[in-house]
Amino acid sequence: MNPVSIFFDSIEVDLKTGPDMCDITHDLTRLINKSKIKNGSLCATVVGSTGSITTIEYEPGVVEDLKRAIDRIAPQGIEYEHELAWHDGNGHSHVQAALLGPSIALPVRNSQLRLGTWQQAVCINHDNKSRSRSIEVTITGTN
Amino acid sequence: MNPVSIFFDSIEVDLKTGPDMCDITHDLTRLINKSKIKNGSLCATVVGSTGSITTIEYEPGVVEDLKRAIDRIAPQGIEYEHELAWHDGNGHSHVQAALLGPSIALPVRNSQLRLGTWQQAVCINHDNKSRSRSIEVTITGTN
Amino acid sequence: MNPVSIFFDSIEVDLKTGPDMCDITHDLTRLINKSKIKNGSLCATVVGSTGSITTIEYEPGVVEDLKRAIDRIAPQGIEYEHELAWHDGNGHSHVQAALLGPSIALPVRNSQLRLGTWQQAVCINHDNKSRSRSIEVTITGTN
Repeated sequence: MNPVSIFFDSIEVDLKTGPDMCDITHDLTRLINKSKIKNGSLCATVVGSTGSITTIEYEPGVVEDLKRAIDRIAPQGIEYEHELAWHDGNGHSHVQAALLGPSIALPVRNSQLRLGTWQQAVCINHDNKSRSRSIEVTITGTN
Repeated sequence: MNPVSIFFDSIEVDLKTGPDMCDITHDLTRLINKSKIKNGSLCATVVGSTGSITTIEYEPGVVEDLKRAIDRIAPQGIEYEHELAWHDGNGHSHVQAALLGPSIALPVRNSQLRLGTWQQAVCINHDNKSRSRSIEVTITGTN
Repeated sequence: MNPVSIFFDSIEVDLKTGPDMCDITHDLTRLINKSKIKNGSLCATVVGSTGSITTIEYEPGVVEDLKRAIDRIAPQGIEYEHELAWHDGNGHSHVQAALLGPSIALPVRNSQLRLGTWQQAVCINHDNKSRSRSIEVTITGTN
């Protein structure tokens, strides 16, 4: 069997005021190609405490529905202790991001992400301003 | 030290209309045995945008409680943009699955999953119909 | 390229009645140093079905805000089927932990965790009593 190798790189995406999200599936696929890894596992982690990563069917309806659900879970209008101390207005952003979580692990099979046909990886910005988001990607597997 | 190796395989489970879930711990343990990997990490990812994976105490009470909580977070009765466009009635399924997330990473120690005594890995179907769910499993570690 | 190696160890933390949480970033960094791994991926998984792991800005305001959000998602006062059978009063704990999830995957770069400046890894106890929590850590990468 071929020896296991590790490849790592990062992706940068520009996102609007949260909750905003973008499809990073093509970027992840590009890194798999660059890595030459055929089979293994890909971990993607967003850097920063007001971002998150998950998978969805990336079509405008689901994107809007998920934004609304995120706003319901930690709405902007209620009182946050974080804001009482820091006055930066993003208490809800921190809570939303922590609940969704910063990372996903995805299967790499035959040099491709093994996802459903209607399943895409997304990075979400929860901050109360536009942000450039960095996603660290680590791919472990065999050539 | 023994060299690191990678093993990958998949599990198929049949689930009813969501939210429905099943215990996949024994399937994961079977794959660890098949892999011959003694120590390392196991990543399990559900294929499809209306499924999710997590861990719970798999007893009928908690299963029912988690189903109810999932329904509270994204209820079936409210308006979803996804349904306005696609009319397939599963807007809530997409939102629920995205919030829970598609993947978990679990420790492999001494050829076994290191989980709590009352902690099991579960795959959840959120779709509004019964589904056969595929879970991709990647195990990285040493023999 | 250096061969890939795997390192594993565990962390113990003492937490109060849930939701309570603590910063485990320094413990994870200590294990990265111990592992001698420079670049790769770290998986951290809490053992037990009433614990969870995520990342937040670990300051008292966000900690309090996240606790409140966790209590809103699965409040202690409502009826849980788990309690009808087991009478241990922690039905909410199981639901909360399952929704947040037991594991995260974090990037290791230049022998350090690559997180945001204000982003820390936390372990959360959701149980209705103080608990000593064990977190299994697996680091995969190259020296």
